[in-house]
This record gives sequence, structure tokens and C-alpha cells, in this order.
Amino acid sequence: MTQFTDPQTLSKTDLEAGTIFAPKFDANGLVTAVTIEAGTNEVLMVAHMNAEAIAETLRSGHATYWSRSREKLWKKGETSGELQELVELRTDCDQDALVVVVRQTGHGAACHTGRKSCFYRRVEMTEGEVGLSDTGEAPLFDPKEVYGR
Amino acid sequence: MTQFTDPQTLSKTDLEAGTIFAPKFDANGLVTAVTIEAGTNEVLMVAHMNAEAIAETLRSGHATYWSRSREKLWKKGETSGELQELVELRTDCDQDALVVVVRQTGHGAACHTGRKSCFYRRVEMTEGEVGLSDTGEAPLFDPKEVYGR
Repeated sequence: MTQFTDPQTLSKTDLEAGTIFAPKFDANGLVTAVTIEAGTNEVLMVAHMNAEAIAETLRSGHATYWSRSREKLWKKGETSGELQELVELRTDCDQDALVVVVRQTGHGAACHTGRKSCFYRRVEMTEGEVGLSDTGEAPLFDPKEVYGR
Repeated sequence: MTQFTDPQTLSKTDLEAGTIFAPKFDANGLVTAVTIEAGTNEVLMVAHMNAEAIAETLRSGHATYWSRSREKLWKKGETSGELQELVELRTDCDQDALVVVVRQTGHGAACHTGRKSCFYRRVEMTEGEVGLSDTGEAPLFDPKEVYGR
């Protein structure tokens, strides 16, 4: 089992300006992971990592998350082939969120819908009514073919 | 009180491909909000929004979050002057995360440490040991002057 430093043992200064990695996990043992494309910085997806997923990502060089729905370690692309090569991992000031900089392989689709990014819809308010509009991002693969459903 | 559509009332297709905004709030009534800079896509910060924060962000045109530590609505920059002008709001496939595209005003610092971005440290593994290295991002304001602490 992977153990990192408990952030509660660090001073605020050490937590926010130091060199000790002390991820602040939530009640479920998870931190938020924002995955962006190297070069363009485009946000591809938002997922979660536990200690094991962080360690495995650093060890293997491939983005690995914790699947909350399947309750297991999730090497991104293990089913779809859309692996994510780790370029850089960053943490934020209070160490409760990570930015995962990746090269998206395969068809270049991080989203299970086959799109490059999960963020393919705008939230807009028109005359007081809130709705979504599609940005027109085309699917790069057919989910039915890839996932068989 | 702001009410959005309950995502559980939507089919998977409507949730993931439709035009109805139905944010999937967690047990605390929050969704993850990833704030990026318009133009560069640089990730500035990760915070949370409840229904009221989302509505206020859309209504006012300034990024407004829910502060988990202060347990109140948090108009970003209300103390520091570092307001965030909303350029675009996006939601992801299953509507449990938002990307907030902003123009960062003031000194251009989203982070309470005075830096542009909260993600100013890399997580690196060297000879099996995980540690942080600073990217050298310079503070754009002095937190002691701005927050008086």
C-alpha cells in the first residue's frame, strides 16, 4: 500500500511552499485530477486518484485513476486503447488537486463518448433560462464499437 | 433557491448528449469547477460550486464558488480584487464537473499565494522517492499586504 505524508503533519508554509508531497485526500481517499493535453493545455477530463493511482501513474508513466463507479484502479485506455502518456504531474497550493499533463494516444479521445474532451457542451443562460449547447466536437471513435455497448 | 434539473430524471443519452443542464452534485451539493485562463487554457485553480454559485456566476458574469472552509458563497476576488470575468462555462459528459473559462483581472493572480496559478509545483519521482519541485512562478502580489496575514 502506497503511503504519502499526511498533510496534517505539515505547517501551512510547508504544505503550500515546500517540497514534500502530501496529498490531501477527501473522506473517500481521493483527490481531484484534472487532465490536460500537453502543448495546448486543453482540459480533456476530470477524474479522481487515490494514493495507489498516483503512485502507479508516476511509476508507469501512464495516467491511472480510481474509478468511483467500478471501485477499482483504472488505467485510462485499458479497454479503449486511448492510453494517456504522462508528461508532467502538478499539485496545487493546498495539495488537494492535481493537474495531469498528458499526450493522449489512440484516436486522441479522452472521453468515453469518443470525443477528444469531455467538455463538449457550453452552459449558457438565455433570457434567464439555463441550457446546454454543443460545441460541435466530432467523435473520434464509435463508443459502440469500442466498448461493445 | 436555485434549482436545476435532477440528473437522475434524465436518460443517459439526454444527460450526456442533450441540451438540459442537470449538474450532478455530490453529497455536499457541490460540483468540481476547473478554472482556466481564456486564450492560453492554463489551469488557474480548482474549486467547487453549488447551485447558487453556478447561477450567480452566470447571472453576474464573475466566477463565484462555494467556499468549503468558510461555508459561504465566494465571489472570487471580493477580498483580493482578483476578480475573474466569465468568458465561457462548460460541463462534462456526465455533468459532474465544470470548466470555467475566465479573464483573470487585478494582478492576474488566481492563487491566494499571489501566483497566477495554484499549480506551481511539479510532483516528481526520483529514485523511487516522490517530491515536489517549484516551477519558479513568481508571486504577482504579496498575500500579507492583500489579506493582512
